[in-house]
Amino acid sequence: MNAPTQLSQLIPEVHQRPVPAAMLDALAARFGAQCSTAMAVREQHGRDESAFTTVPPPAAVVFAESTQDVADAVALASQHEVPVIPFGVGSSLEGHLLAVQGGISIDVSRMNKVLAVNPEDLTVTVQAGVTRKQVNEEIKSTGLFFPIDPGADATIGGMSATRASGTNAVRYGTMRENVLGLEVVTASGEVIRTGTRAKKSSAGYDLTRLMVGSEGTLGIITEVTLRLYPIPEAISAAICSFPSIEAAVRTVIQVIQLGVPIARVELIDANSVRMVNAHSKLGLREEPMLLMEFHGSPAGVKEQAETVQELASDHGGNAFEWATTPEERTRLWTARHNAYFAAIQSRPGCRAISTDTCVPISRLADCLLDSVAEADASGLPYFLVGHVGDGNFHFGYLLDPDDPRERQVAEQLNHQLVARALQLGGTCTGEHGVGLHKMDFLVTEAGAGAIDMMRTIKRALDPKNILNPGKIFAL
Amino acid sequence: MNAPTQLSQLIPEVHQRPVPAAMLDALAARFGAQCSTAMAVREQHGRDESAFTTVPPPAAVVFAESTQDVADAVALASQHEVPVIPFGVGSSLEGHLLAVQGGISIDVSRMNKVLAVNPEDLTVTVQAGVTRKQVNEEIKSTGLFFPIDPGADATIGGMSATRASGTNAVRYGTMRENVLGLEVVTASGEVIRTGTRAKKSSAGYDLTRLMVGSEGTLGIITEVTLRLYPIPEAISAAICSFPSIEAAVRTVIQVIQLGVPIARVELIDANSVRMVNAHSKLGLREEPMLLMEFHGSPAGVKEQAETVQELASDHGGNAFEWATTPEERTRLWTARHNAYFAAIQSRPGCRAISTDTCVPISRLADCLLDSVAEADASGLPYFLVGHVGDGNFHFGYLLDPDDPRERQVAEQLNHQLVARALQLGGTCTGEHGVGLHKMDFLVTEAGAGAIDMMRTIKRALDPKNILNPGKIFAL
Repeated sequence: MNAPTQLSQLIPEVHQRPVPAAMLDALAARFGAQCSTAMAVREQHGRDESAFTTVPPPAAVVFAESTQDVADAVALASQHEVPVIPFGVGSSLEGHLLAVQGGISIDVSRMNKVLAVNPEDLTVTVQAGVTRKQVNEEIKSTGLFFPIDPGADATIGGMSATRASGTNAVRYGTMRENVLGLEVVTASGEVIRTGTRAKKSSAGYDLTRLMVGSEGTLGIITEVTLRLYPIPEAISAAICSFPSIEAAVRTVIQVIQLGVPIARVELIDANSVRMVNAHSKLGLREEPMLLMEFHGSPAGVKEQAETVQELASDHGGNAFEWATTPEERTRLWTARHNAYFAAIQSRPGCRAISTDTCVPISRLADCLLDSVAEADASGLPYFLVGHVGDGNFHFGYLLDPDDPRERQVAEQLNHQLVARALQLGGTCTGEHGVGLHKMDFLVTEAGAGAIDMMRTIKRALDPKNILNPGKIFAL
Repeated sequence: MNAPTQLSQLIPEVHQRPVPAAMLDALAARFGAQCSTAMAVREQHGRDESAFTTVPPPAAVVFAESTQDVADAVALASQHEVPVIPFGVGSSLEGHLLAVQGGISIDVSRMNKVLAVNPEDLTVTVQAGVTRKQVNEEIKSTGLFFPIDPGADATIGGMSATRASGTNAVRYGTMRENVLGLEVVTASGEVIRTGTRAKKSSAGYDLTRLMVGSEGTLGIITEVTLRLYPIPEAISAAICSFPSIEAAVRTVIQVIQLGVPIARVELIDANSVRMVNAHSKLGLREEPMLLMEFHGSPAGVKEQAETVQELASDHGGNAFEWATTPEERTRLWTARHNAYFAAIQSRPGCRAISTDTCVPISRLADCLLDSVAEADASGLPYFLVGHVGDGNFHFGYLLDPDDPRERQVAEQLNHQLVARALQLGGTCTGEHGVGLHKMDFLVTEAGAGAIDMMRTIKRALDPKNILNPGKIFAL
């Protein structure tokens, strides 16, 4: 693996392709007030939640209100060979939204209609700009829910494009498993549909899953059909403290290996608990903690909980606290939900850089413990949370953004972590995507042959390289 | 939709590309006794289980014993621009294996090693020629199992290539959900790897799922890493008879909509029961029947069974017969397992043509009942079985292969069924694949734009069109 990639190294390689005046005129003529070139709007669309230095913003932002708007904007971009970058709520974490080759942003947040709820088929079809919380709000009368929950209230389009997941993935899968079909605008501005509402199909190439996780580089997602699930009859949550991270992780490994259908199992390290206690006055034991949730029938939930409690006890887990009402559950989950903000506030002025490795469950303890030792040795403040049932976890390194040395330490820690995860048969990104930050890691992970295949697909489907260029891999 | 496609219409369009003598010489030099040009061997590799008239067989068969063998054979084929068709056990159903453009067959059945069992991660890595029953045989000491079970004891490579599923898919998903990673030989004879052993990943394009279901047209699968599942603590099976197909199907719809995690739920129509009674002397009530299986803890299984029994009773279901020991379960499943052979024997000399539509569960009754009425009206003998929990079912029309009129009636029935399924938001193939037989249907289902995208990907990844050419879509 090469030395850690830093954006400062990437930017000089990027050429800002010009956006001709004729393109801006054509956008103004077609979109009127739906197109903005105001600097504040452009700047807001030229960054995401990553810690990257901002590159020059896109030349214009089109606020699409329909698939036809997206198609027309892309057709104009194709004609003028101008890059287009789709934008939802701007919550991506790896530099996905930066206009590293210039171009325009297509903001789909106004495409926020739930188009069809089919409760009898456990599906819903939404426009790309609908957020995950909005989906659940709009379907709540059906007795169904959509489980995928990245930290942010992201758009379904963005979650599809980055193959997002979250705390429920251990039971319900990721966007890979939960997107049934898509409407996509191609690089030439054509509109295609992928998949059907049938639960399974062997009909030709799986374009749906090719688009899911393609980060806007193969097409712009405009509609998504999602799988839904019946809200469980019983839900029970619990927190449990452990004498060490290892004890917590070894408990999780056994839970998964036994096939307990646990719905959520989140690790929160002692640092996070300390920060959350300081932030939210929760009075939790300042030890590593698992936060768990069980879904099923009342008897099933009880049975799962008993199994897990027994496994936890074997590893010294104690202070089990249970919650079955929605209010109690919300209180328990506060520690997890507030971890990020509590951490940020623990070091005024800092920025958090998040890692995202995922490894086979049997290697989770090895991968995690060695990386904890390295982080401790570095002296950099950090917190650690994780969807450990999937083998996925996030270190959040808390940096002084004005201190290049700290940035370098964090990059080095992440570099070592990714190298370790890949050596253990894992991946550099469980759910955040590649964007700009993990391009070198992806080459190491996938190998030259697979990257070449990805490049060949990209060149074939986007011959002018206008769809979010410069992301995932260099061409 | 165009008129029904018949192979007799397809074959004239196919041009048999020459296999130069230099290619055959090179194969003989490289592979010696591993390469056969004996007519019997070639003929065996030039057909599958479909009812298509055989086209001329491949010019040679290479019995690959390693990934390197496959890579070398493909490299030679690329050099001479000769088609290559991967072959497992020959159990595909839609003409996938026919050498419609000539070329050579690469038989992977000798690549039958289980390479790595990782019980602690619930994964196994196998060579492409390992069959599904062999996987389960070789891992039985681990307490884990691999659930995907198409009718035949197919190879894992072939099951991946056709995105196969079977009776357990309602609970455990299809090959789409259960293949974690692949080794693939590309059109130029390079070897690439896709995916990792991590349970989830957002690292670049999902080449794994692009290859799964690509029917040998984008690469030849040589290794597969599969997800495994703990053998359930308790398994209980039941059969239940219903006064009508509609009553059975409406029961299933409610089971699915309530989110009961049923492991298997198979419909067997009264025709099938009659044929199976005649064949295996089972003495079953000659009424439509559901065959169900429940997996979980003893209490969980009991709870699921009670829920389903109540729903079935509401629809007139009766004569529940339960089985909990493996021997009793096997006896109950005999009806399902023998349905095909019992049907074939019910009409001596006949061939069965199988349909494979899959629709959203809410439309299952409409789709199925109208098609039953059409089949009854046609006078053609048939049986009906189905993975109805997924909305997937198979009519088996029993034809006199020498009677073109019967063939035409069957094609017409299938044509009407597919049209109906597509209109209801479903797919022309739930698990068999497109092959030759469903090419026209796929155009209707996917639309011109999506088919163009598939063609573009095919042309980019296989510029000489040597990988199983002439399948899925015309170029």
